[in-house]
Amino acid sequence: MAITSPQEDYSKWYNDIVAQAGLAEYSGVRGCMIIKPYGYAIWERMQQELDQKLKDTGHQNAYFPLFIPKSFLSKEAKHVAGFAKECAVVTHYRLKSDENDQIVVDEDAKLEEELIVRPTSETIIWDAYRRWIQSYRDLPILVNQWANVVRWEMRVRLFLRTAEFLWQEGHTAHATQEEAVEETEKIIDIYEDFVQKFLAIPVLKGVKSPSERFAGAEETHCIEAMMQDGKALQMGTSHFLGQNFAKAFDVKYYTKEGTQEHVWATSWGVSTRMMGALIMVHSDEKGLVLPPTVAPIQVVIVPILKKNVDAQAIHRAAHDLKARLQSQGIRTQYDDDDNRRAGWKFNEYEVKGVPIRISIGAKDLERGTLELAFRHNALKESVPLGEVVEKISQSLQKIQEELYQKADTYHRQKTYEAHDYEAFKTHIERGFVSCHWDGSEATEQRVQQETKATIRCIPSDEGVLGVCIFSGKPSSGRVIFARAY
Amino acid sequence: MAITSPQEDYSKWYNDIVAQAGLAEYSGVRGCMIIKPYGYAIWERMQQELDQKLKDTGHQNAYFPLFIPKSFLSKEAKHVAGFAKECAVVTHYRLKSDENDQIVVDEDAKLEEELIVRPTSETIIWDAYRRWIQSYRDLPILVNQWANVVRWEMRVRLFLRTAEFLWQEGHTAHATQEEAVEETEKIIDIYEDFVQKFLAIPVLKGVKSPSERFAGAEETHCIEAMMQDGKALQMGTSHFLGQNFAKAFDVKYYTKEGTQEHVWATSWGVSTRMMGALIMVHSDEKGLVLPPTVAPIQVVIVPILKKNVDAQAIHRAAHDLKARLQSQGIRTQYDDDDNRRAGWKFNEYEVKGVPIRISIGAKDLERGTLELAFRHNALKESVPLGEVVEKISQSLQKIQEELYQKADTYHRQKTYEAHDYEAFKTHIERGFVSCHWDGSEATEQRVQQETKATIRCIPSDEGVLGVCIFSGKPSSGRVIFARAY
Repeated sequence: MAITSPQEDYSKWYNDIVAQAGLAEYSGVRGCMIIKPYGYAIWERMQQELDQKLKDTGHQNAYFPLFIPKSFLSKEAKHVAGFAKECAVVTHYRLKSDENDQIVVDEDAKLEEELIVRPTSETIIWDAYRRWIQSYRDLPILVNQWANVVRWEMRVRLFLRTAEFLWQEGHTAHATQEEAVEETEKIIDIYEDFVQKFLAIPVLKGVKSPSERFAGAEETHCIEAMMQDGKALQMGTSHFLGQNFAKAFDVKYYTKEGTQEHVWATSWGVSTRMMGALIMVHSDEKGLVLPPTVAPIQVVIVPILKKNVDAQAIHRAAHDLKARLQSQGIRTQYDDDDNRRAGWKFNEYEVKGVPIRISIGAKDLERGTLELAFRHNALKESVPLGEVVEKISQSLQKIQEELYQKADTYHRQKTYEAHDYEAFKTHIERGFVSCHWDGSEATEQRVQQETKATIRCIPSDEGVLGVCIFSGKPSSGRVIFARAY
Repeated sequence: MAITSPQEDYSKWYNDIVAQAGLAEYSGVRGCMIIKPYGYAIWERMQQELDQKLKDTGHQNAYFPLFIPKSFLSKEAKHVAGFAKECAVVTHYRLKSDENDQIVVDEDAKLEEELIVRPTSETIIWDAYRRWIQSYRDLPILVNQWANVVRWEMRVRLFLRTAEFLWQEGHTAHATQEEAVEETEKIIDIYEDFVQKFLAIPVLKGVKSPSERFAGAEETHCIEAMMQDGKALQMGTSHFLGQNFAKAFDVKYYTKEGTQEHVWATSWGVSTRMMGALIMVHSDEKGLVLPPTVAPIQVVIVPILKKNVDAQAIHRAAHDLKARLQSQGIRTQYDDDDNRRAGWKFNEYEVKGVPIRISIGAKDLERGTLELAFRHNALKESVPLGEVVEKISQSLQKIQEELYQKADTYHRQKTYEAHDYEAFKTHIERGFVSCHWDGSEATEQRVQQETKATIRCIPSDEGVLGVCIFSGKPSSGRVIFARAY
């Protein structure tokens, strides 16, 4: 099946890639996706890398319950207000057969208190932290969990917005405000580094406007990426929660001096949404394009078998090359399936975004050279057999850099400065707009109503005085507006 | 806090270890546990190892929805009958504030069809396989997922029986019965190898009696381990599902010959229950004992600092030793926390089951030797500084073997042969009983009612004719009875 061109229908292009590259699909459950093996292998690459970064900075993994008692969720007023409208609620704990032998919910097995399927875990975790924290010696607590969460969504898109998604959520507890703020910033820096280096996606870093903050946070730091349609996708957030959850759950500690204080908190997460960005930032009209770091298969070798050629010699050469590549840690697949023709395979690995394809035929062996085909720029290069491993090793790094550079150039080209509202309305059709904002929620709402654009982030380095493009009132700095996923 | 002796109160001993080693605790949600960082680090070690074994044998990870529509669960009659009584049911998808500003379930947001929180995923997965499988070329499908599942339990014990637990569940689809049977057996062999080598726990391998089979299976293979109280704990199961789920979900494939056939299935899993066995098989009255393979910390170095000694020299020596051990891949921690005394630390790492402890004081440096203290046998050994790394490397392997041997000896000693029901009733108080059974469910039930023992497994190598110890009827082979967790 052909992939719809992104110019023709961006949304269909995205769906085509997700489907044809075998990344994910909708399930029999409304709003819930199935992450297929190839998609999950990419997610696992992300998980491993980020997990190591978090461990290297002193964080430990743990696991907290899927269910949250309704009363816990209700303890922090803003928090519950933010999540109440999208909660899956468990009310019963048993099924039974009725008189017609139909399976029905057993009304006798009604829970005294309803359980919410976690939309995020601050409340169940801070209930535990009350037991874990008595003294300054118990601090800091630097805990992360990899988990599934559920936020009921009416409009669903694979990876971008699904009722259930996978993520990591960090929840830390600190003795002082300074330490908690420092942790919040450290994490957003880790996310920025991870997304830019590992996913080859440039991001804008900054804080959210008050109306876009996480429900229950004092400050939300974020990184935002630009998709190839100029829209923004939030890649990760790190929240300074102040003492809000410590107060809601009565978590205090004894200081060195013997006084009692509430604990300071942060929380932060990235999710399978990142998969959506990975697809939308790098891919093209031929399908998925993957940075080598996350590609489950970095190199695929395809044999070109014709009548009257020595198939064994080709197989031997391919297996030998594969072994040499793998010994260098390069994830290599040799596709010697007889049932599919070479052209069919070329197309398949193109759609799946495998960075480098090598074909091996009798002529290649005669000549002593192999042809490398690069997915990201469609170029081909002939390389002497003895130099192939070295060449590939270098190329994988180069591809990573080129993908980042390409995305970065795009991001810069599509980021506009607007000095008045007319210019704003023109630019916002095409990409990000940097402009002055008066700091009021009223202005933010009006702009959103009129243009569908929201403030994606307030970059930290934009503290220049100016005039709000909408209200004309004074502004203390620029912000980035965009339409967003 | 002291740990209750296992002789005094086995159950309390277990709970004390789980609590004091920081493995897990109950949460604010009935039946759900929190896996604490140290416990989770052990689980992660298990996951990594088993995940690699599954990948090495051609399995791929994927992710399927948490929720299962009630109608899906109901499609396979035996399956739903087996799980109906322990299902958490989602009925609503929104909360709201009522007139008194209380958070309540929004009755307007009632689901048309209730969703079950997955107790296992056969049904949601086979609904997807119907879309994935058309031809013999699509087979086999060898998919695994790491996930949380929920089975509502009234009597809960940490790791052993909790409403929510973590596991891996494999679900494979095959063209022929032979292939599916082979897969079922391959997996139980992988589990056996993993549990015996990696967890140092000897197991019995065999099949379940029909009444103990997985709900919806044609045959259930299992491995069973003996705890130190003589009771059995099921460590893993692998099910041959026949064509039951393929028929329930209408999953057919075109053969090479162009005919259409139903697909053959297997499913298999191990869970955080294994953590319970790990604790109960190896630990002692002083706390947890961990095989080196799964120990998050294999070696802990504790400095002995006194007045008037050169603390810097001790720190230098410790850091140097840690670096040398880590370069050999040995997971090492240097505990230089000033707030806790050495004796307190010794106790802590003993309770946590760290295999080897090294203390470094001024005298050790003078002498040029270090004392290694082994957790599993309480022995100490003085080793010249230059030989410490080599010695530890060897010791870790030796500890692993010794733990297995000890558990294996215990398992053999506590496995009895019974030739009549009186002997059976005596032996069943102490351990496993191997005896003849007439093959009837009636006998199985009577024995269970009278002795609380169930048939744990029917070993494959016990096909000797005999006479049932209960009914006196002919028996075609021995089975293993035990009381079980």
